[in-house]
Amino acid sequence: MINVSPPFKINPIGVVRSALKNIHDCPRQESEGAPGAWIEIAPQYTEAMDGLEAGDEIMVFTWMHLADRSRLKVHPRGNRGNPMKGVFATRSPHRPNPIGLHKTRITALEPPSRIKVEFLEVVDNTPVVDIKPGVFNPLFQTSLSD
Amino acid sequence: MINVSPPFKINPIGVVRSALKNIHDCPRQESEGAPGAWIEIAPQYTEAMDGLEAGDEIMVFTWMHLADRSRLKVHPRGNRGNPMKGVFATRSPHRPNPIGLHKTRITALEPPSRIKVEFLEVVDNTPVVDIKPGVFNPLFQTSLSD
Repeated sequence: MINVSPPFKINPIGVVRSALKNIHDCPRQESEGAPGAWIEIAPQYTEAMDGLEAGDEIMVFTWMHLADRSRLKVHPRGNRGNPMKGVFATRSPHRPNPIGLHKTRITALEPPSRIKVEFLEVVDNTPVVDIKPGVFNPLFQTSLSD
Repeated sequence: MINVSPPFKINPIGVVRSALKNIHDCPRQESEGAPGAWIEIAPQYTEAMDGLEAGDEIMVFTWMHLADRSRLKVHPRGNRGNPMKGVFATRSPHRPNPIGLHKTRITALEPPSRIKVEFLEVVDNTPVVDIKPGVFNPLFQTSLSD
């Protein structure tokens, strides 16, 4: 199945289960303290988890479903004292395509569908759209072969 | 504008212009030698580039439009000698939501819409769906505030 014409359609492959119930509870940085969370993979995608192991660093891609997609400039970190910047120069969730990127570590796997992760600063019920292994060095990429 | 019900719709914010004209020319790793490339931002999104500068490390999110979205397991790096793995444990472009993630560096900006980058292992005309600043350490995230 190839999807070459926009708009491209994304179906969630899973969902975040977290104690963070609303966006005001969310820390702005993981290093500012986010709780552990579960990722629950939808049944039709659990086969794609094969090979993930406790201890693995992963990148979790989410759909920031509460974002405002019409905003092209923001005050970084929501601070009006910071001059406005284009969203491509910030990590604001408010952006044309609100894809969230989160680096975390798997702490446990509960077959067939649950992945426990160390920290994830997103609210409960945030859709997960992809997971990739998280080796950042020296360079990382996704090529167009396997 | 909020988009909370799947399928989520992604519109490209730009496109890659590259000398790589087909997937067989693509190196599997940037470190294996990918050429410089241009990202051309669509006119309605150029405002979101404000604040990007030559020298910045960025993460470029692409839509790997040639990927097979039905594949849940692959032989890593396309080598049949490698045992099959779930796509979430690999960087295969073949995955349910073929979002590509590429770390690169801006080498030049050509206003109002063109960004020259150091390396990008994707084929010419690959849609770009997001750009974020690329500071990876110690942890990075996108929060739900600005």
